[in-house]
Amino acid sequence: MEGRCVKIGILGCGTVGSAVIKALLKNRKALKEKTGIDFVVSKVCDKDIKKRCLFPSLFTSNPEDIINSSEIDIVVELIGGTTVAFDLLKSAIDNRKSVVTANKAVISEKGKELFISAEEKNVHIGFEASVAGAIPIIKTIRESFIGSNIRKIYGILNGTTNYILTEMFKNSVSFSTALSMAKNRGYAEADPSLDIKGIDTAHKISILSTLAFTRYIHWKDVYVEGIENIEPLDINFTAEFGYRIKLLAVAKREKDNLEIRVHPTLIPSKHLLSFVDGVYNAIYLEGDMFGKSLLYGEGAGGSAAGSAVVADIVDIGKKLVHNNLPYKTIISEERKLKVLPIEEVSTRYYFRFTALDRPGVLAGIATVLGRHNISIASVIQKEESPEKAVPILMLTHQAKEVSVRKAIKEINNLPFIKKPTVLLRIEE
Amino acid sequence: MEGRCVKIGILGCGTVGSAVIKALLKNRKALKEKTGIDFVVSKVCDKDIKKRCLFPSLFTSNPEDIINSSEIDIVVELIGGTTVAFDLLKSAIDNRKSVVTANKAVISEKGKELFISAEEKNVHIGFEASVAGAIPIIKTIRESFIGSNIRKIYGILNGTTNYILTEMFKNSVSFSTALSMAKNRGYAEADPSLDIKGIDTAHKISILSTLAFTRYIHWKDVYVEGIENIEPLDINFTAEFGYRIKLLAVAKREKDNLEIRVHPTLIPSKHLLSFVDGVYNAIYLEGDMFGKSLLYGEGAGGSAAGSAVVADIVDIGKKLVHNNLPYKTIISEERKLKVLPIEEVSTRYYFRFTALDRPGVLAGIATVLGRHNISIASVIQKEESPEKAVPILMLTHQAKEVSVRKAIKEINNLPFIKKPTVLLRIEE
Repeated sequence: MEGRCVKIGILGCGTVGSAVIKALLKNRKALKEKTGIDFVVSKVCDKDIKKRCLFPSLFTSNPEDIINSSEIDIVVELIGGTTVAFDLLKSAIDNRKSVVTANKAVISEKGKELFISAEEKNVHIGFEASVAGAIPIIKTIRESFIGSNIRKIYGILNGTTNYILTEMFKNSVSFSTALSMAKNRGYAEADPSLDIKGIDTAHKISILSTLAFTRYIHWKDVYVEGIENIEPLDINFTAEFGYRIKLLAVAKREKDNLEIRVHPTLIPSKHLLSFVDGVYNAIYLEGDMFGKSLLYGEGAGGSAAGSAVVADIVDIGKKLVHNNLPYKTIISEERKLKVLPIEEVSTRYYFRFTALDRPGVLAGIATVLGRHNISIASVIQKEESPEKAVPILMLTHQAKEVSVRKAIKEINNLPFIKKPTVLLRIEE
Repeated sequence: MEGRCVKIGILGCGTVGSAVIKALLKNRKALKEKTGIDFVVSKVCDKDIKKRCLFPSLFTSNPEDIINSSEIDIVVELIGGTTVAFDLLKSAIDNRKSVVTANKAVISEKGKELFISAEEKNVHIGFEASVAGAIPIIKTIRESFIGSNIRKIYGILNGTTNYILTEMFKNSVSFSTALSMAKNRGYAEADPSLDIKGIDTAHKISILSTLAFTRYIHWKDVYVEGIENIEPLDINFTAEFGYRIKLLAVAKREKDNLEIRVHPTLIPSKHLLSFVDGVYNAIYLEGDMFGKSLLYGEGAGGSAAGSAVVADIVDIGKKLVHNNLPYKTIISEERKLKVLPIEEVSTRYYFRFTALDRPGVLAGIATVLGRHNISIASVIQKEESPEKAVPILMLTHQAKEVSVRKAIKEINNLPFIKKPTVLLRIEE
């Protein structure tokens, strides 16, 4: 570092990388005015040497030129994945460089190792862009809400699935049609399974939970269900009950117990999260001082993620120039919070039974539910057809997941039930 | 400052002051775990000596005991107003103490002087709590969105007026009834005029504009209208047109021109801001990197404002302990942005004419509007009554304020117009 100049090396020159480089070059003067620091892009690395033409004077195809450079202060990893990206981040930290990453997979899978290394080496890790793109949720939890105990986080954290559910709601299309539309518009990858199955959302809520509860949460600690079994009739019937279906990340603290889960969830139509449509993201939080809060914005795209990367670069640059020590560890070790297994969680449920339209069917279902202490809040049976199976929609009061699973297993074995029962959880 | 201990003196022991003190005492251990710093409340001052019993060992009624104390690092001003509060803040800064305030009036009125003093003395000013309580909008603009050029800010920044407009919408009550309800529920002061007339909102948008555009904006630079002339029929008719009425703070940048204004505004019913009801606050922003963003939360109350004050204390404490220099000045001096006078602003309008129900009335109004190049988008006349004046509601296309004012003045002089025309602006 020369005086008040911070030198940056960028690994990965895709959509986010290009946006970051362009923003740093274009706003160099403005950032200097605002911070007193000259942020200089020193080197840009991509394995695809055709990218050289984008930034010819800065380009290298060898990441070692950045990781091992004595002049570079901050290494920005925008490659993605958990293998090469992890190795490069780890090496950069071992070389006493601060790092910035937009990579939720690597933080949620191997974050613990990176955070511990960074503390040992006295360097910074910025990962604002890893969750919800331009929305400053990491900084808000770590800094703005530092005086509060966070009790609850609800997140719509994946644009692809939110776009699909929005299209299914607004245009009554099927899941597969909505998925094709998402692919056509560039909102879904060729292999969209990480998004659809909720894994991407699990990555992100594990990061937010780690910060909010100051206890490492691996994404595999998160209970996950995807949206692939949602049908238009679930969306239509839940709308009649006054709910919208969203792929919601839920993290709750009750004393020393944590619930962390990702699944399609019924939320009341009047809740602000119900108005988060299309590819947008939002995070709703509750805490003892700040009360209720919601942050909404663009969750993906080069420019949105780039905005968060630039903010991290500037934050770390200010600390480096002003000889600041890194923030204390993210984790307060002594807190031994327990993540509840999904079976121990209590919530309200929506069931879609597919049953023959005969007398005694509802009584049969209700008897099983009653034996498992599951109390019915409301029931709708729309269609009538003496010949074939029809959907029966039901909302329950609060019930325990373990009881619900046992009851549904029994019900699915009843002779008049013709398809496995669909189960969705409700949050209000 | 002893080692990693930061000592805090608090001026003003009202709702916010008490919440801050309690939070700092209760969370002292947790804050130390998270930051490595021991945040200690050293002294609490209030002119009302009956408050002594709340914190007997910390209490003083003489602010000099805090301002002049050699051991205090951060002075927190929670008195309010622009006279005593300003003098105490200025003296604290002159004594080389960092300050934190929740006082929007003093920052929007005399912030420039305070910022300049703080820079000279190399101390910090935290004022997150001055705008929108617990919502971290100051930090978001200054830090998270530092890579973006902010083009637009829309804010619902005053809980009292938003509560009144919400009640008028949901329960069809009059302005004065809604105001009484607000007073009964403790949402409005005995003298609510600062809120009702939009002054409080002007204070807040002037602070946000100063940060977003890095040019000092005094609250008197802001064009202000209050909500006192809104009638239930405006709310009902605009709802039919597909709009909600909100007291909106608007700040826009178009090249080097700024529009900054506060007035009752029609916003489309489907815009997220339309769902911000009751005493909640929200800020919607647009910028070139982050795109579109909305922050929503509790705008007032001891706990919400206290949350922001604690965040400022912790931020400044970290800088003090780690020998960090203050952030560079808020203002990039060379930017010579111009604030447009309201007459030069172009927007869409809603008019409520009160006219006799006679043939030729609409033609008479339309002729005047046409002569001033104001084009009509839609018209509703609901009631019919040959004897008495009836409301005629109109939406226009984009028009210039100066033309609108001339036209309305002429129209108000037409013989069949029986009351001054009500004019509201539209943002979409």
